[in-house]
Amino acid sequence: MAKRERVAFLGLGIMGKPMAANVCRHGYELTVWNRTRAKAEAFSELHRGVEVADTPAAAAAEADLVVTMVPDGPEVEAVLLGPDGAAEGLHAGGLAIDMSTIAPTQTRKIATALSQRDIHFIDAPVTGSRPKAEDATLTIMVGGEKRDFDRAKPLLDAMGALVVHAGPVGHGEMVKLVNNTAAAINAAALAEMLNLAVKADLNTTAVVDVMASGSGASTMLTLKAGPMLDRAYAPLFKLEHMLKDVRHCINEAKALGVDLPIARLAESLYAKADEAGYGEDDFAAVIEAVSPGS
Amino acid sequence: MAKRERVAFLGLGIMGKPMAANVCRHGYELTVWNRTRAKAEAFSELHRGVEVADTPAAAAAEADLVVTMVPDGPEVEAVLLGPDGAAEGLHAGGLAIDMSTIAPTQTRKIATALSQRDIHFIDAPVTGSRPKAEDATLTIMVGGEKRDFDRAKPLLDAMGALVVHAGPVGHGEMVKLVNNTAAAINAAALAEMLNLAVKADLNTTAVVDVMASGSGASTMLTLKAGPMLDRAYAPLFKLEHMLKDVRHCINEAKALGVDLPIARLAESLYAKADEAGYGEDDFAAVIEAVSPGS
Repeated sequence: MAKRERVAFLGLGIMGKPMAANVCRHGYELTVWNRTRAKAEAFSELHRGVEVADTPAAAAAEADLVVTMVPDGPEVEAVLLGPDGAAEGLHAGGLAIDMSTIAPTQTRKIATALSQRDIHFIDAPVTGSRPKAEDATLTIMVGGEKRDFDRAKPLLDAMGALVVHAGPVGHGEMVKLVNNTAAAINAAALAEMLNLAVKADLNTTAVVDVMASGSGASTMLTLKAGPMLDRAYAPLFKLEHMLKDVRHCINEAKALGVDLPIARLAESLYAKADEAGYGEDDFAAVIEAVSPGS
Repeated sequence: MAKRERVAFLGLGIMGKPMAANVCRHGYELTVWNRTRAKAEAFSELHRGVEVADTPAAAAAEADLVVTMVPDGPEVEAVLLGPDGAAEGLHAGGLAIDMSTIAPTQTRKIATALSQRDIHFIDAPVTGSRPKAEDATLTIMVGGEKRDFDRAKPLLDAMGALVVHAGPVGHGEMVKLVNNTAAAINAAALAEMLNLAVKADLNTTAVVDVMASGSGASTMLTLKAGPMLDRAYAPLFKLEHMLKDVRHCINEAKALGVDLPIARLAESLYAKADEAGYGEDDFAAVIEAVSPGS
């Protein structure tokens, strides 16, 4: 059996922390870095043998595989390519695995910059929220060379239940955008139909039961019909983040010469809800753009 | 235990035949009528004790409960209220149960005409195709008085797995329209996203697997992603029928002062596919309106 590769995990936020914990549980030698160092120290106290690094470069110097899990594109770029970034520490032939959700165009730009230093790169964003990160049941979609996907697979299997190779660099992010935009449209359509059901004075329990039993069923129906009918928006996934994903998707499609009229209409509804002050709420609040609650 | 009510079943088409067979299997005394009498004769040869009537009126004269399962509104009106219609035979206090899919406005009109003859009425359209009709696992959504719903419930339970009371007359049809329109939008959104996936050269198997595992999942994804990607449209539910339902839904909403912008956009796509000659195909062919196949 090949010697197991050493891992640097950069970013111990809401998602990164439980993901890194699963990597640790699978017996990987692990060095962690976090912008707020106290979080990395706390993590290392909980997980025996985990080292804490002062900079991304220092963490990467101890590793063969570098995982980044940070908020958005600029942070990924800074942590990998900025001063004291991982690219300064990682040896030639090392593999950077970005699990953040960022625009595919930015992903490709970062991959190109890293390849000039002989550092391999894959994008591997995830779907599923914190409980799935904790249970290692995330869905992970990967863009990159097949060889790099195969190399990262055992590590990704430690964090996810479904790990798929979507195509070349950027395609992991692209699959995530396609999925999230489909979800955003299904949720907006659900809001439109539930509003009609209420206005038509239908028994909404009957409506939801009927839809759940057949052709109208969807994950969005299961998760969002209740919050929409109750107008209760405790955030599982913030509306402003869903809006960002739909916009990224529309822009990527435009660059390919593909128009997305349904996604554009959904975008206008999420934007309206965002402007009405629901950006920090769960995206179930899109029903406020369809019909403001009383 | 109350004496079981006698049933007249009018319309033995693709759906009506297996539904009537299940009524028969549950031990109901049954008289059948069909426009083409030979089909009714064949049915009665298969099911011992079933009587065949010459007219809807003659069938209804033997019954307490009259079920109609015919193509559209004009046929329901003719079979119930036309010359030799069921209303001429059914006794005062009898209950007519329309299981066809027709416009809610026409449903209410029929109910009013029947009530003038002291005949009760409920609308009870179904979702689920022929296999579910055969297995008695249809979803049945009922509009009408609670008392009439309770009276029909044992008979409907012989044909369906989920039987819900949606509200007053017309609400059964309305719930069906809401469900089908949600399905139509989800399918149109799926077509838009799969077209993008193809144009972006994504691994479409990975895309479908990722969507099926989480927020992008829907019954439409399960049933229609394959036909859309294969451009294979063997009809399970014809595109022209889906278009009709979406149009009914938009019109009913308009009468209530409710705008359905997403449904209107979906309508335009189904209409475009219909005009391109896909009306008789499965509604998965909506992808032809998003992007014509080569």
